[in-house]
Amino acid sequence: MKKYQQLARQIIGQITLGAWLPGDKLPSLREQVTLSGMSFMTVSHAYQTLESQGVIVARPQSGYYVASRPAGRATVAPVKVMRDEAVDINTYIYDMLQASCDASVVPFGSAFPDPRLFPLQQLNRSLVTVSKTATAMSVIENLPPGNEALRHAIARRYARHGMQVSPDEIVITAGALEALNLSLQAVTEPGDWVIVENPCFYGALQALERLRLKALSIATDPQHGIDLAALGQVLNDYPVKACWLMTNGQNPLGVTLSPEKKRQLVELLQQHNVTLIEDDVYSELYYGREPPLPARAYDERGITLHCSSFSKCLVAGFRIGWVAAGKHARRIQQLQLMSTLSTSSPMQLALADYLATKRYDSHLRKLRRTLAERKQQIWQELHQHLPAQVKLHHSEHGYFFWIELPEYMDANLLSEQAIAHKISIAPGKMFTTGGGWHNYFRLNASWALGERERQAVVTLADLIHDQIKA
Amino acid sequence: MKKYQQLARQIIGQITLGAWLPGDKLPSLREQVTLSGMSFMTVSHAYQTLESQGVIVARPQSGYYVASRPAGRATVAPVKVMRDEAVDINTYIYDMLQASCDASVVPFGSAFPDPRLFPLQQLNRSLVTVSKTATAMSVIENLPPGNEALRHAIARRYARHGMQVSPDEIVITAGALEALNLSLQAVTEPGDWVIVENPCFYGALQALERLRLKALSIATDPQHGIDLAALGQVLNDYPVKACWLMTNGQNPLGVTLSPEKKRQLVELLQQHNVTLIEDDVYSELYYGREPPLPARAYDERGITLHCSSFSKCLVAGFRIGWVAAGKHARRIQQLQLMSTLSTSSPMQLALADYLATKRYDSHLRKLRRTLAERKQQIWQELHQHLPAQVKLHHSEHGYFFWIELPEYMDANLLSEQAIAHKISIAPGKMFTTGGGWHNYFRLNASWALGERERQAVVTLADLIHDQIKA
Repeated sequence: MKKYQQLARQIIGQITLGAWLPGDKLPSLREQVTLSGMSFMTVSHAYQTLESQGVIVARPQSGYYVASRPAGRATVAPVKVMRDEAVDINTYIYDMLQASCDASVVPFGSAFPDPRLFPLQQLNRSLVTVSKTATAMSVIENLPPGNEALRHAIARRYARHGMQVSPDEIVITAGALEALNLSLQAVTEPGDWVIVENPCFYGALQALERLRLKALSIATDPQHGIDLAALGQVLNDYPVKACWLMTNGQNPLGVTLSPEKKRQLVELLQQHNVTLIEDDVYSELYYGREPPLPARAYDERGITLHCSSFSKCLVAGFRIGWVAAGKHARRIQQLQLMSTLSTSSPMQLALADYLATKRYDSHLRKLRRTLAERKQQIWQELHQHLPAQVKLHHSEHGYFFWIELPEYMDANLLSEQAIAHKISIAPGKMFTTGGGWHNYFRLNASWALGERERQAVVTLADLIHDQIKA
Repeated sequence: MKKYQQLARQIIGQITLGAWLPGDKLPSLREQVTLSGMSFMTVSHAYQTLESQGVIVARPQSGYYVASRPAGRATVAPVKVMRDEAVDINTYIYDMLQASCDASVVPFGSAFPDPRLFPLQQLNRSLVTVSKTATAMSVIENLPPGNEALRHAIARRYARHGMQVSPDEIVITAGALEALNLSLQAVTEPGDWVIVENPCFYGALQALERLRLKALSIATDPQHGIDLAALGQVLNDYPVKACWLMTNGQNPLGVTLSPEKKRQLVELLQQHNVTLIEDDVYSELYYGREPPLPARAYDERGITLHCSSFSKCLVAGFRIGWVAAGKHARRIQQLQLMSTLSTSSPMQLALADYLATKRYDSHLRKLRRTLAERKQQIWQELHQHLPAQVKLHHSEHGYFFWIELPEYMDANLLSEQAIAHKISIAPGKMFTTGGGWHNYFRLNASWALGERERQAVVTLADLIHDQIKA
């Protein structure tokens, strides 16, 4: 990212966080040169960019001001929507992921649950079965849309939730990530506007960058999820092609939308004929009595491509996910045939075999119980050691905590310090294109609280204490 | 594809095949309306398109003429280069692939060798070993760039051919197809010009379409391979970013470039600083005494991304390939992390285990022997039944025949008729964007010549006889 872009992002971030409100006068060009240490050219370029994006306005003889919202949005403050015409998050994410892969690091920054919670032995038994039953011709039988028994097993799981999903509309993919990428590609052209949440799963931002799409980020709250009023305004203002979001256990916030809100979301998107790409990889990791349904369950007009996988709840390494793609199923298969051809045949067969053993549900019950316990234990540990100024956002879904530091603090700096102590966290910067959430981070609480994890919490708390004192 | 584009392609195809030579007068707009049955608007649009591409020229008061080649190309006839600004081959390929997947069809159109030639039992033994040794944490160890033992085993195979490829520059991918796609994406931006062969592997054309790249197709000959003179001219005339080609056992022609020609190719691309994306999936399937080296072996400046896989010579269903990506290795990993995350962990481990058994080379020797025998048998059968007007292009590599029907015949029609008789072939149309090769098809000769295959050859010959009589 160029320097002027960095500065522009920084200012958008400040506006998002409410540091600058609509109508506020921004520092003059010369003041900004002093503040940022950047050249006059760079600062001027950044301001021009923000002006061309409608984020700020220049008033002759006076200076630059934060743009006021259009009439309909006047009551919505601070900024609920951010637009980003060239998403660029990739290198940063890559570096963070690489750091998390080191086995000597306590992986509080990881997106995956502790793989020791997965039924390795039973899955291995299925692998052995496959090694005995697969024939030379299995390859052809498992080309897109994928293994038939596996697609049927997935369709039956939808049916148990009262949803009608035909095996014929299911395409097996390399994890949910390929499903989401193919879905996005199937319904957009480069340059199209796509709605994402803010903050959101970084995979969505990377997909937008890769496919050269433009992002509209909608404010999303740890308690209530996406801001439907802001969403409605954006749908009125922009020719949006698709909306990529998570309705259950949103990453990184953990929030699950209420049934009523899911219904409203679907209605809103239907009104504007916008495709919903629903990332539902955490759906099985609920702790309430009833499993939450996806938005797809409320969609009778077929605007939803519902993407999920087994990677977060059964086995990460198999790389098996799917999309229930409705009328887009054929296009998705075409796109898959020309990018990865298909997912591996033994992995599909092994999963089909495992699902046929009917042990999946008892595994899931055990997994939910263990994750809930671990989340509680780590919460207590964090609560005990973290300074009172730190806020732990808690959700009834998944295994993430969204942790809010005092506004003046920098989670990115904390992340760098933590890595030096062999602890990873996932700073807010990973989940946005706009430079906001600088004082937030995501913490993976799926790990057993051993001595190593306990010490990591203490170290993390010490680092935060140090920043507070400083 | 729109009608005017169809017509434009058709005319380019006719020029390529020499039906119209440089300087020839084309049918007038009104004549073309009668000939094509299309509207005046459509015909006019097609001619304008061809004119803007420099394929034809308008002479006032006279009509449209096939453009003469620039001075340097004057001796080169017919057209050695085709340009295509919006590649669209996808739906046709998809339909062809779907047709080939039916187990009741004799798969002469398939791209894969008979999977019964693969060491299923030994691979299954490796799967069982993996099921005993894989740990919960294997997933993390096999994230991009991929399993270390597997990358080392691949690097050692390069070393045995005297090539220096570090395990650190190897990225494990979902077959060669993902390797090729990621490579292309790593070095191009939408709208860039990319060189492909004509005819070429349809996956290249699909990748160009998907990434919105523009194609320059260089004439490629069953005996001598790519036309280096035409390639040199294109490199002079266009700001080319990459060249995607096959140096060994080219698909569909089967041609392998001589060492001298590979050296010249690399020099030419180096002079113009153009990246070579080398698709080398058939490299192990040679029948000469010495294994042919890839172009990469002649590249000391690091312009080559060398892509290959185990899918054509060991196991198709595992979906494991790789790219030796040199300085692009990090970018490739980034692109993979945001599209499919990684290949499946058990598949990587099983292959690493199989390669450690040191049975791969004896399998390859046996595979080459069997394929050579089968190719010979099917050649005899074809030779016996096909009319004398049909030409069988033979190569010393791989398991394809490139079959040339008389010029007035239509391999596409033959393909439709053959499918009705439960026989697939791969018509020339699959391997070009320009509408040429209408009277060619590719035949997969890796199958054991049983009664079913013998009958299929007879039926195919009958269908050809019928077209000849008609």
